[in-house]
Amino acid sequence: MTQMRVLNNYISVDCVIFGFDFDKLNVLVVERTLTNDDGVVDFSDLTLTGNHIFEEETIVEAADRILFDLTGLADIYLEQFKTFASPDRLKKENDRKWLLHDGRDPDKRIVSIGFFALLATQKVTLEWKGRNIKWLPVDEVKSLAFDHNLILEEALKALRSKLLHEPIGFELLPDKFTLSQLQKVYEIILDTTFDKRNFRKKVARMKYLIPLNEKQQGVAHKPAQLYLFSREVYEKTRKEILNFLV
Amino acid sequence: MTQMRVLNNYISVDCVIFGFDFDKLNVLVVERTLTNDDGVVDFSDLTLTGNHIFEEETIVEAADRILFDLTGLADIYLEQFKTFASPDRLKKENDRKWLLHDGRDPDKRIVSIGFFALLATQKVTLEWKGRNIKWLPVDEVKSLAFDHNLILEEALKALRSKLLHEPIGFELLPDKFTLSQLQKVYEIILDTTFDKRNFRKKVARMKYLIPLNEKQQGVAHKPAQLYLFSREVYEKTRKEILNFLV
Repeated sequence: MTQMRVLNNYISVDCVIFGFDFDKLNVLVVERTLTNDDGVVDFSDLTLTGNHIFEEETIVEAADRILFDLTGLADIYLEQFKTFASPDRLKKENDRKWLLHDGRDPDKRIVSIGFFALLATQKVTLEWKGRNIKWLPVDEVKSLAFDHNLILEEALKALRSKLLHEPIGFELLPDKFTLSQLQKVYEIILDTTFDKRNFRKKVARMKYLIPLNEKQQGVAHKPAQLYLFSREVYEKTRKEILNFLV
Repeated sequence: MTQMRVLNNYISVDCVIFGFDFDKLNVLVVERTLTNDDGVVDFSDLTLTGNHIFEEETIVEAADRILFDLTGLADIYLEQFKTFASPDRLKKENDRKWLLHDGRDPDKRIVSIGFFALLATQKVTLEWKGRNIKWLPVDEVKSLAFDHNLILEEALKALRSKLLHEPIGFELLPDKFTLSQLQKVYEIILDTTFDKRNFRKKVARMKYLIPLNEKQQGVAHKPAQLYLFSREVYEKTRKEILNFLV
């Protein structure tokens, strides 16, 4: 006998799932359509990927579940970055309608714990469950439901800040990547450009980037060397990095 | 006529208020005593400083309110660092008793948004409202109520990480401070020691530390020069710092 799982009505998790496609940063969004009882579409708009937590579930388990449901992937970089609980966050017209139609009270506060996830878009087959989800370039995001524009903005801030202090850029790439691809990750997220030679110099100091005896395949240009991120080497050299920074 | 303010039952804010006394890092704790209806003390233990939010209040307003209530100060460094919502966080014996005695259901989940605050202990007169609060050296903290040991531990992690990347150490000192005092802040929080000359060299690169034409007063040793942190200079030189780090 399986136990009924009960959703908690006032604690939710929103995941800002960032996906990089070698060219730009994208975010996974869900199409939300409210169809009235007479079958007429009232409105259709976009939300981030999120859900309420189950009563017996931790918030990390909830975020993992949401990620798995949408991507089929279980081992994704995921980080809690900020919590959103403004009294106004559910008060836009469409959001009130949506909640009421769903049998919920839009005047009750719902707290949402924001996580961001990082992956290479090519790792995901979005169609695996037939959901109405899609990648949207972050630069092209317009109005989102609830306070999701704010959540996205704060996730971007957290991502930029983290990228400056910790090697997480490779999480947006396939397991094996080229240095040009890594440079592009930094350039896009930090909205800047680097001189190629200077960037290579910086990279040379990152001992946790392991060059492989392997090159790109099936590319039109001269194939570049592939690299791997080693968490083990990173953890070992981390102390050194901290001492350097202080 | 003032409007009745209603507390939200399931969203709370916990503040880890760190205070530095030139020698060690302390945290502000509250003595919680459960007295039964017959006047007998059932138990007494320690909690962090926290409270539920009011229905019309943002979480930052709630954190500011808690800080002001306890310290009488309005302009304190305050940062949201992590949210706590484990299904087990209210389930310890004393905590269940406490909640039941308070007319609340210990089986309902309460989400707590953690903030940490930084200040110099000398800025606060704890007795101003006659509360049962006190400074406890972080190293001497034993068992706290709820999941407050975990919240403290995560606040310390966030503080250490932030201190490595941003100039926040001076928030733990009086407005005017000496370089030895600043060095002590770094040493205590990062649990390390620095060679004095090396530390001075690093400090010399921090253009936002402004030397004053003023020295310590009333000290037994040779009075040292006083410094001031300038947010204006920091914001101006910040871009430079980021470029250096990348």
